[in-house]
Amino acid sequence: MKILILGANGYIGNALHGHLENKGHEVLGVDNDIRHSLVDLVGGKSLCNVNDREYACIDICEYNALLGYIKLHTPDTIVHLAEQPSAPYSMLGPEECAFTQHNNIIGTLNVLWAIKEVNPKIHLIKLGTAGEYPDWLYPNMTIPESPRITVNYQNKYWTIPTPRFGGSLYHMSKLHDSNNIDYLCKIWGLNVTDINQAPVYGHIEGTRFDYDSVFGTVVNRFAVQSVSGEPLTLYGKGGQVRGFIHLKDSIEAIRLIIEDRPEGFTIVNQMAEQLKLRDVADMFVRETGCKVKNIKNPRSEMEEHEFSYTHQILKELGLEPSLLQDNIRELVEFTTKHKDNINKDLFKPTTTWKK
Amino acid sequence: MKILILGANGYIGNALHGHLENKGHEVLGVDNDIRHSLVDLVGGKSLCNVNDREYACIDICEYNALLGYIKLHTPDTIVHLAEQPSAPYSMLGPEECAFTQHNNIIGTLNVLWAIKEVNPKIHLIKLGTAGEYPDWLYPNMTIPESPRITVNYQNKYWTIPTPRFGGSLYHMSKLHDSNNIDYLCKIWGLNVTDINQAPVYGHIEGTRFDYDSVFGTVVNRFAVQSVSGEPLTLYGKGGQVRGFIHLKDSIEAIRLIIEDRPEGFTIVNQMAEQLKLRDVADMFVRETGCKVKNIKNPRSEMEEHEFSYTHQILKELGLEPSLLQDNIRELVEFTTKHKDNINKDLFKPTTTWKK
Repeated sequence: MKILILGANGYIGNALHGHLENKGHEVLGVDNDIRHSLVDLVGGKSLCNVNDREYACIDICEYNALLGYIKLHTPDTIVHLAEQPSAPYSMLGPEECAFTQHNNIIGTLNVLWAIKEVNPKIHLIKLGTAGEYPDWLYPNMTIPESPRITVNYQNKYWTIPTPRFGGSLYHMSKLHDSNNIDYLCKIWGLNVTDINQAPVYGHIEGTRFDYDSVFGTVVNRFAVQSVSGEPLTLYGKGGQVRGFIHLKDSIEAIRLIIEDRPEGFTIVNQMAEQLKLRDVADMFVRETGCKVKNIKNPRSEMEEHEFSYTHQILKELGLEPSLLQDNIRELVEFTTKHKDNINKDLFKPTTTWKK
Repeated sequence: MKILILGANGYIGNALHGHLENKGHEVLGVDNDIRHSLVDLVGGKSLCNVNDREYACIDICEYNALLGYIKLHTPDTIVHLAEQPSAPYSMLGPEECAFTQHNNIIGTLNVLWAIKEVNPKIHLIKLGTAGEYPDWLYPNMTIPESPRITVNYQNKYWTIPTPRFGGSLYHMSKLHDSNNIDYLCKIWGLNVTDINQAPVYGHIEGTRFDYDSVFGTVVNRFAVQSVSGEPLTLYGKGGQVRGFIHLKDSIEAIRLIIEDRPEGFTIVNQMAEQLKLRDVADMFVRETGCKVKNIKNPRSEMEEHEFSYTHQILKELGLEPSLLQDNIRELVEFTTKHKDNINKDLFKPTTTWKK
């Protein structure tokens, strides 16, 4: 298949590119290097060198450039990874918030308009986030894997969009994307798969590895902290439940969906497992003997809760994701190898959600 | 009270300005003349002359300009009317869609950040739309007047955000606004009243009166068509139920909410009555003897349905809105007076929702 990756030079895009080529697909990439610039802007730096791939330098917020590229190359499938991916970044201030919502919402709308214009049969895979189901909305609930659920209200059965919300202005941008997509699939008959992806961790040769408090996700940050001589910084009580998936399984999941080509608007929950953050920390403690420091939670979130995600669709497509406990050693070996590059100043959170 | 109107020179803003001044309030206005420019752009023209008021020319998408103005003037209340208000405009193409979502979402986010920065006690009144409750989602349902409802799901009671969706990319922008506001009220403790307003009709001395197919709402368009010698253009079967409110009652409703100052995130449904579009057409037929022509519906909507809105909050504050049947004569007298300005080319819909 001919596959276009938007955001081809980001953390997932870079790894996905290689994986799809290895599986015999023709892969095209578009990027505008925003991920690199933004990490620079907050003072971060990838722990390891990045092997940049060849890609067309296009900002998908520029409709005509995007349209021209898609018209020229007529891909079968577009994988849209070209979003500002950091929740803390979106909460830094009005400018970062506006950038995040503009980039994510307008970029996604442009992709949808271009698909309608060029060929409505193009399958779009859009990366959403498991964070569209925040803790306060789903305490002790099982999160469904469907755009609609049927509830009972005032003694009537009622089919409604599956309730979603955001836990940051970044997560909100993903929710707005999902709503726009849902609507345009309805009126234009597009085929879009919205992947609610759990935080991705781990490293694949050639890709970046961020561990700063803005762009580094919790597992990657812990992996660096655990070999740095500093304690792991655990936000609040650490009883937050999050889903996790290794980068290698994330890109395999995307490949399975590319080849399956579901029709209409489809929601897929993508994760390997659900863990409490303090249990994640404990895995690193057992491996390296590092310490853990509970710090004041900069985020607005529940610090003790339970919930579970339905994630059947990828299982049925054959995904057998690895578990964090089986990847801990590899993670620690990788961060140990690059230990000299660690900048401990990047560990401390620089954003708070509240005033 | 000191009240800042954003979008002070639009259809509602202009009328609200005068009304609040008459009631003894100090009123400030900000506008960037977008309404006038966009109506120009689609070839439209107000039926009557507009008495421009004095206002500061600021684009609320420019955060620093907005912040500076609010810091300098420290209003008690901000009424945010500075949104691109047309559903057909948002569906014209990718550029108009991007403009709509950018202008509405980023503008609203900037207002919220500025309030947090200057004084979180400032009461914000934001105009949403009754179109956040589309027909397919609420067939035969009563629409609640609250940001949360409790439903039963898998044998558990579950409190969720009141289900909403959009019936165009403009309506979607309002939904995104509502979700961003809901979230920021939650984490920053802001006081925002989100008014789900039904389509406003009618004229007040000095304000504009659009009747083109993009910026004119259905009642104002019918009022012009009924005296033009052309038939009323009724979209589809005309069994669509819509809420309606006269401009004079809309601005009185906003005044009541300004003076009531509800705390936290509040949703208010603002309308006088609910009518089927064909019954609205019939009122004009009875008054003027005009004809009705059912034309192919350019929108994606159900053409026969029932639903009802709860709209208790404004009733309890004392609003006694007028009904359309009692305003028909005045509307026809107004459009007759300006009959020479009618451009019949503006009646025909120029947008279709589907490809």
